[in-house]
Amino acid sequence: MRQETIDRIRKFSSDRNWDQFHTPANLAKRIAIEAGELLECYQWSDEADLEHVKQELADVIVYCQNMLDLLGLDVDEIINAKMDLNEQKYPVDKAYGSNKKYTEF
Amino acid sequence: MRQETIDRIRKFSSDRNWDQFHTPANLAKRIAIEAGELLECYQWSDEADLEHVKQELADVIVYCQNMLDLLGLDVDEIINAKMDLNEQKYPVDKAYGSNKKYTEF
Amino acid sequence: MRQETIDRIRKFSSDRNWDQFHTPANLAKRIAIEAGELLECYQWSDEADLEHVKQELADVIVYCQNMLDLLGLDVDEIINAKMDLNEQKYPVDKAYGSNKKYTEF
Amino acid sequence: MRQETIDRIRKFSSDRNWDQFHTPANLAKRIAIEAGELLECYQWSDEADLEHVKQELADVIVYCQNMLDLLGLDVDEIINAKMDLNEQKYPVDKAYGSNKKYTEF
Repeated sequence: MRQETIDRIRKFSSDRNWDQFHTPANLAKRIAIEAGELLECYQWSDEADLEHVKQELADVIVYCQNMLDLLGLDVDEIINAKMDLNEQKYPVDKAYGSNKKYTEF
Repeated sequence: MRQETIDRIRKFSSDRNWDQFHTPANLAKRIAIEAGELLECYQWSDEADLEHVKQELADVIVYCQNMLDLLGLDVDEIINAKMDLNEQKYPVDKAYGSNKKYTEF
Repeated sequence: MRQETIDRIRKFSSDRNWDQFHTPANLAKRIAIEAGELLECYQWSDEADLEHVKQELADVIVYCQNMLDLLGLDVDEIINAKMDLNEQKYPVDKAYGSNKKYTEF
Repeated sequence: MRQETIDRIRKFSSDRNWDQFHTPANLAKRIAIEAGELLECYQWSDEADLEHVKQELADVIVYCQNMLDLLGLDVDEIINAKMDLNEQKYPVDKAYGSNKKYTEF
């Protein structure tokens, strides 16, 4: 995401004095609610209305950005830390072409 | 997110031949599942284990990136399009300091 | 559900002095979290581990019962009221064999 | 739930020839989507519009009933089996008044 997009997300909330509503629990709820709306696009099949999908996926990402901001997290840092874990849990030789959970290896 | 982080997310899947599992509906399910795990960190209060939160939030963001990739979407484009809509639905003078839904204005 | 099953659910919480944690928002979070775990059983396909499904579905239903109790709601009353609405929104002649949303009729 | 309420839920689907859409994965998605809508009632606080809550909670329960029917499950059986597990994981002396997860005892 470009810095100016991040800035726009932040300005949108601060212009409306909405940062007061952004507690971590409220944002976690919001992300789950929006993820449900994204899932609804795929209720019946993989064929979804792409315009609708774009809006719902954007909502999930925007609230994730709000949460990163609120908690003072760096997106690259938390993703790389998680990828380190994932690479340990799913070594290529065991995980190749498999959708098993690592607990089932 | 830096390009090298995006590349790492992509390489993780392609190294494991997992792109075959990444249908839009499967990713929408995954995002909802991970959002539930993030929400669980805040089951009882705003006080959560920050290390756990980082991991779950990273998971949500990683699967959102997978979905952007699968659908060929540009994150800045879909977010700016959604922010255009949000700014129309929530004009500053009506929305300032209010947590009402736009349908209640 | 039989009355003795409902009573067992209630006794389980009261024996542990857990009713203090059962605020409506906490139960709504819990239902969403458990629904995510049920969904995870179907991450990849309609083929799921039935024992796992039974446990996760039971969890969703138990927390719904907790919520009915907390809010003093009668399950038959709220379901019949909702079915009245659903029957209006989805008249048989329009909805037969269709998975369209009522807003699309 | 009374038998006539269960029968009404079943008749609603069969009258509309909707049973064809009730695959386990579709119902699991639906339950998660409705759980998100229920959660939305509590986005900001424990104060929610009770009429709205009733409708969303009813939706979750109706789709759970659809899933019980589809999988041929007995609600009392699966709940009692889960309560057996819960009582083992959360013995009264350890769990009394605590919101810790059993893995933290």
